Amino acid sequence: MSTTSPPTTDHGSCWARVREEAPLVQCLTNIVAAPSTANLLLAAGAAPAMVDNPHEAGDFAAVAGGVLVNLGTLSDGSVAGMHAAVRAAAAAGTPWVLDPVAAGALGWRTDVAHDLLSVATPALIRGNASEILGLAGGAGGRGVDSTAGPEAAAEEAARLATRHGCVVAVSGPVDHLTDGRRVVRVGHGHPWMTRVTGVGCALGALMAACRAVTDDSLVAATTATLALTLAAEGAAERSGGPGSFAVALLDELAALEPDTLAARAELR
Amino acid sequence: MSTTSPPTTDHGSCWARVREEAPLVQCLTNIVAAPSTANLLLAAGAAPAMVDNPHEAGDFAAVAGGVLVNLGTLSDGSVAGMHAAVRAAAAAGTPWVLDPVAAGALGWRTDVAHDLLSVATPALIRGNASEILGLAGGAGGRGVDSTAGPEAAAEEAARLATRHGCVVAVSGPVDHLTDGRRVVRVGHGHPWMTRVTGVGCALGALMAACRAVTDDSLVAATTATLALTLAAEGAAERSGGPGSFAVALLDELAALEPDTLAARAELR
Amino acid sequence: MSTTSPPTTDHGSCWARVREEAPLVQCLTNIVAAPSTANLLLAAGAAPAMVDNPHEAGDFAAVAGGVLVNLGTLSDGSVAGMHAAVRAAAAAGTPWVLDPVAAGALGWRTDVAHDLLSVATPALIRGNASEILGLAGGAGGRGVDSTAGPEAAAEEAARLATRHGCVVAVSGPVDHLTDGRRVVRVGHGHPWMTRVTGVGCALGALMAACRAVTDDSLVAATTATLALTLAAEGAAERSGGPGSFAVALLDELAALEPDTLAARAELR
Repeated sequence: MSTTSPPTTDHGSCWARVREEAPLVQCLTNIVAAPSTANLLLAAGAAPAMVDNPHEAGDFAAVAGGVLVNLGTLSDGSVAGMHAAVRAAAAAGTPWVLDPVAAGALGWRTDVAHDLLSVATPALIRGNASEILGLAGGAGGRGVDSTAGPEAAAEEAARLATRHGCVVAVSGPVDHLTDGRRVVRVGHGHPWMTRVTGVGCALGALMAACRAVTDDSLVAATTATLALTLAAEGAAERSGGPGSFAVALLDELAALEPDTLAARAELR
Repeated sequence: MSTTSPPTTDHGSCWARVREEAPLVQCLTNIVAAPSTANLLLAAGAAPAMVDNPHEAGDFAAVAGGVLVNLGTLSDGSVAGMHAAVRAAAAAGTPWVLDPVAAGALGWRTDVAHDLLSVATPALIRGNASEILGLAGGAGGRGVDSTAGPEAAAEEAARLATRHGCVVAVSGPVDHLTDGRRVVRVGHGHPWMTRVTGVGCALGALMAACRAVTDDSLVAATTATLALTLAAEGAAERSGGPGSFAVALLDELAALEPDTLAARAELR
Repeated sequence: MSTTSPPTTDHGSCWARVREEAPLVQCLTNIVAAPSTANLLLAAGAAPAMVDNPHEAGDFAAVAGGVLVNLGTLSDGSVAGMHAAVRAAAAAGTPWVLDPVAAGALGWRTDVAHDLLSVATPALIRGNASEILGLAGGAGGRGVDSTAGPEAAAEEAARLATRHGCVVAVSGPVDHLTDGRRVVRVGHGHPWMTRVTGVGCALGALMAACRAVTDDSLVAATTATLALTLAAEGAAERSGGPGSFAVALLDELAALEPDTLAARAELR
């Protein structure tokens, strides 16, 4: 497996285009992360729209720039909305991102994830190591926090990426991003990202925003990861705890210039 | 159409009464804006209650001071709750506010909005220009952000207000409020209001709180708009981005005295 | 009724164990409080998981350390999830906390609360005075804010605690906690706690987190109350309003050391 990264300048360009084009990102997400996801998308310059009911989710996915499908707090109604969105996204060529929250740990949602993957191929799958392992068929974690390290999931991530023809992003202290052939590792960030709810969920949404402005899913995943983790580093420097960190994260993300992102990015 | 505004002192009195009476505001709203709406109502001195299930929404609307019906993230269950609330509000004389999020852009919710308007007349309709145009039958926008300017919607707003016998508030850089006869324009505020999710949704809730303490819907809409936009101006002065702005907005709204509101208000 | 309190050192130990063990707290809660509840649990060091659908709620309750059942924004689907969670929690010996939001004031949810109590005995019931009176059969309040003083509910709280064999916590300016025999009163806190949405709801969740690491429900309820109210005192000192208070509350809770909690605790 090659570890050649796409040139960093692509990430600056991708971030610049998010700012310029304000892509419309449809979010079918959970009740915990919905507010912070919308705020982080707005801070990034994207336009969030939480259209998740089955009557409208399909029509909206056909016109959205990207779609996030996050399995955090499912209901029968929201699953129907997700199926409608994924079918319409596939038909319209709208890229979608799957965030299989707690896959492997809980049976119903693991089935929901597999059902969605059988309907259409996502551009990206984003989860922590436990979730990626759980989705790939291994043992799951105990919910949204990861009990397996991201490196442990690297092999499964590559297999999953190859099987579905998509990029798989394994979040952790070092983020591991792969399309099954190329690998990018991002070591930025701060432990407080795990002490604020919904940061991982928002990362999936940012990936959908970035994917809306580039066809290269690996560049999109890397750009979103860099943007959020670099903003987190800046935010942590001037915060006194997880509350002020969450506030500063929004300020930092809104202030993050494309040139700064490209200059500060260290990929492995 | 006259542009004579009601005397500014009325707005100070209205705001003072919100503080004194702590009106009970029932919110049937979306999963993104629910937390910030509750917090902005509490900062204003009102008492929010998110009673939105069809078993209880009617009973509660009969005793609430005002009801907000926001179409942001509908489900079949919440639509049933909205119908129950609107019917009971009409029967009990409780004023209600309709926020037709993304009306015109999406078919089902546009039908839901029209269905609710056929059940009973709201005291107020609040939306951005695209939503007001969409509700009036024109072309809709692309979600919650407005693609049409507020002035473009002025004529339709007047027509809609006359048709339903209510006040229509078109939010934008200059807010345009009309009962079909009188017009008030409010030019306060800050662009960061559009970079924080749910600020517009909370404005609808604040209108319901103000309408609970006065029978004049135009005074209520103007007072709520002044309170939020003046608070936003103060908040922007001491914020470094959308995250700190959202926090400061709550502090500023809680600290906004009726005299200050009346003194700083510039209506057009 | 004795007013002998358990030794304060127990509360420090309980808080220390929450930090060390990071108990998994399943929250079936409302759309308003879900984000802040998750963030306050994370700040405390616990691991929140909002698994509330009827397909998975039972399986998860069997492995969770504690379960919160909060009736804030019910739907038919979430009630089914609550029944599944409570049944499975009882079978597995997982302690659960009932927060009967607006019980007494609204009929359906009062029935839901009684139905849940007939399925299994909770470790704790937490509410304001109106809710505890409403649950006990008295007159209810007007929603989530309390119209009755906590002392007025003391007698009913003891009766309710004895009837169900659990601890009842009555939140207010002075928190009143009882198992029907022992009473603990906690007078810490700040009025801004009632100007931020979901603080009471998060208190119930913190009680579930504390109860996950000790079998003594009264120690758990007291520790959670002390942690949140002491954090609130610290937060209020460096805040300018309810917005900055909510942010500082998270920072203070995350920084609250077990020794500090034990040293600053004043019980009555």
